[in-house]
Amino acid sequence: MATGAAVSRGTDPEPLPDGVSSSSEVSLDELQLSQRNHGMHLEGLRYDVTPAGMHYLLIHFDVPEADEASWKLSVDGLVRNPIELSMADLRSRPSVTTTVTMECAGNGRARLSPRPISQPWLGEAVGTAEWTGTPLRPLLEEAGPLDGAVELVFAGADRGIHKEVEHDYERSLPIADALGDEVLLAYEMNGDPLPPQHGFPLRLVVPCWYGMTSVKWLTRITAVREPFEGFQQLAYRYRQEPEDDGTPVTRMDPRSLMIPPGIPDFMTRSRIVDRGRHVLRGRAWSGWGAIERVEVSEDGGSTWASAELGDAVSPYAWRSWSFDWDARPGVVELCCRAADTAGNEQPLEPSWNLGGFSNNAVQRVSVEVRARA
Amino acid sequence: MATGAAVSRGTDPEPLPDGVSSSSEVSLDELQLSQRNHGMHLEGLRYDVTPAGMHYLLIHFDVPEADEASWKLSVDGLVRNPIELSMADLRSRPSVTTTVTMECAGNGRARLSPRPISQPWLGEAVGTAEWTGTPLRPLLEEAGPLDGAVELVFAGADRGIHKEVEHDYERSLPIADALGDEVLLAYEMNGDPLPPQHGFPLRLVVPCWYGMTSVKWLTRITAVREPFEGFQQLAYRYRQEPEDDGTPVTRMDPRSLMIPPGIPDFMTRSRIVDRGRHVLRGRAWSGWGAIERVEVSEDGGSTWASAELGDAVSPYAWRSWSFDWDARPGVVELCCRAADTAGNEQPLEPSWNLGGFSNNAVQRVSVEVRARA
Repeated sequence: MATGAAVSRGTDPEPLPDGVSSSSEVSLDELQLSQRNHGMHLEGLRYDVTPAGMHYLLIHFDVPEADEASWKLSVDGLVRNPIELSMADLRSRPSVTTTVTMECAGNGRARLSPRPISQPWLGEAVGTAEWTGTPLRPLLEEAGPLDGAVELVFAGADRGIHKEVEHDYERSLPIADALGDEVLLAYEMNGDPLPPQHGFPLRLVVPCWYGMTSVKWLTRITAVREPFEGFQQLAYRYRQEPEDDGTPVTRMDPRSLMIPPGIPDFMTRSRIVDRGRHVLRGRAWSGWGAIERVEVSEDGGSTWASAELGDAVSPYAWRSWSFDWDARPGVVELCCRAADTAGNEQPLEPSWNLGGFSNNAVQRVSVEVRARA
Repeated sequence: MATGAAVSRGTDPEPLPDGVSSSSEVSLDELQLSQRNHGMHLEGLRYDVTPAGMHYLLIHFDVPEADEASWKLSVDGLVRNPIELSMADLRSRPSVTTTVTMECAGNGRARLSPRPISQPWLGEAVGTAEWTGTPLRPLLEEAGPLDGAVELVFAGADRGIHKEVEHDYERSLPIADALGDEVLLAYEMNGDPLPPQHGFPLRLVVPCWYGMTSVKWLTRITAVREPFEGFQQLAYRYRQEPEDDGTPVTRMDPRSLMIPPGIPDFMTRSRIVDRGRHVLRGRAWSGWGAIERVEVSEDGGSTWASAELGDAVSPYAWRSWSFDWDARPGVVELCCRAADTAGNEQPLEPSWNLGGFSNNAVQRVSVEVRARA
């Protein structure tokens, strides 16, 4: 791959880099990951707030054992006043509840060709939750980052090995982003203590950014002088080749999803509906701006019509949409696509990158419309 | 397959029947199922009761929309007094809470060769929950099955198509089994209303039986004169060939699982531990009797040593076990196996059947023991 040529989708005669498969079928290793890291049932799009247990989940290593009574969060590094807080300390601080749509950066990865090998998401790696916690900003202001501090590194208690590198899960944010009023240290999800698999007893929640930023099982926040280059920071970059520096994966690109109409076939999940009028419903979101347009296609993306937009559940959560559909007998492919106020629109075809990030190509739902009334 | 020969694992020269794959890799259809139907994180074995959202889940079709206020359960068919109950009626009846270990009948399916194509479980399709509801038996006694009634058919609100047959999800129980004191009409899980994906607002819970028996989104109980032969009833049978009558899948065969020790590799989930003493912990259960023995092997199943048994969480839930392990440097394969008081023991190798049910072959965990302290 020293030629500098980009890996194109499907027809490139050059050998594939490590970690990319020419097969659409997944290995037992990938299957094993997908048994742990589940998506949201698409019919869950009917709820403003995703019920506990339906929200998507990505755990890089193991869910650590955690004892709330002895849990400590330290704020240290290049700060004037290093701080250590217990969970009781954190709970005694001002609390806010924010409804946030969160999506995995790898959502859609398994639909790329060739296929980057990692957690094989198809498109359901999303959820919306009410996160309750204390805002990060006042705590950072108390700690007082010193001149020269450029980023904060957030460390979780989960530890493991990826590509032969043993590490704790750690991700950084530029200080300006960490100071956003919407960034939370969360200890409740949907009104209950965090479930273990969502970061009990404490996690970072960074609205608008892909989920890898919202570090679970948070133990430490460290102000640093240089941009962080830990394993997970370098892993989440848009690259065409292993040697590329690439660019960082940050905010969520726009995506819309529909509740598949009618009833499913067990194995294929394709749909059967009766002819006549149906209301298609779904949600759309973007981390770059508000959703300003959702369109629906009944012919696989050749022609489009505008959906009706509902309200956003919060400034940081998905917006509902609906579309009156007159279903005529035959087999159709329904699609939806969203555009945001920042000028981003979902593409018809995936944009390929080595890590398989941000494949926000339009959802396609195969439907057989039956002639019976 | 008209010769009557059993399909053997791997070396049979005959063509495979429909729905069986010679490849260990799974298709996008199977992957799509595994994104919806998630297993339990094995580290979740540390909890007596599985936290909400970590319990395994199998949904044949879609999670239906459900309104508790208008939900009705009817008890009809061959009964003296047909009954219709609202959720308020059911909640006003005596309530009990029972802790139950539930497992999918297809657990382990994806480790068979050739591989039956369906939800591709590896081994984590289990969970233990506190189910609260009203016992079924008194309600049945009020309805009064008439002479000639042999089974009760339980119908859910979920509907779809499987192998070209459109149907509601329905399963039956012989009346004697349905009259067991432990059978519940459950409306709470772990102290909260049922999550939508676990059957809100009402489900059947049949302890000791595989999970397909515990019908979710329960709307109707019908006493019938002949053994029920609906799609789901005929699907869950042990068969070697499509033409076989087979025998019904009923209670859970014994299984033990361990919490994988040390830390994982992201992609392979294989483990790294430091040399020295470790306590291996896990759980074991059987639907046929109490667990009376768990053994651990450090050499892939050649030699075995007894684990120490803890208490069962309830008469219907898993029993904890532990094992003192002196880890010596090298690569080892840890295994565990359980035996119950009914004389069943986990096999070293899977027993093959066409539906891929009840593969309770021993769990195998690959571990690298490091020389450092």
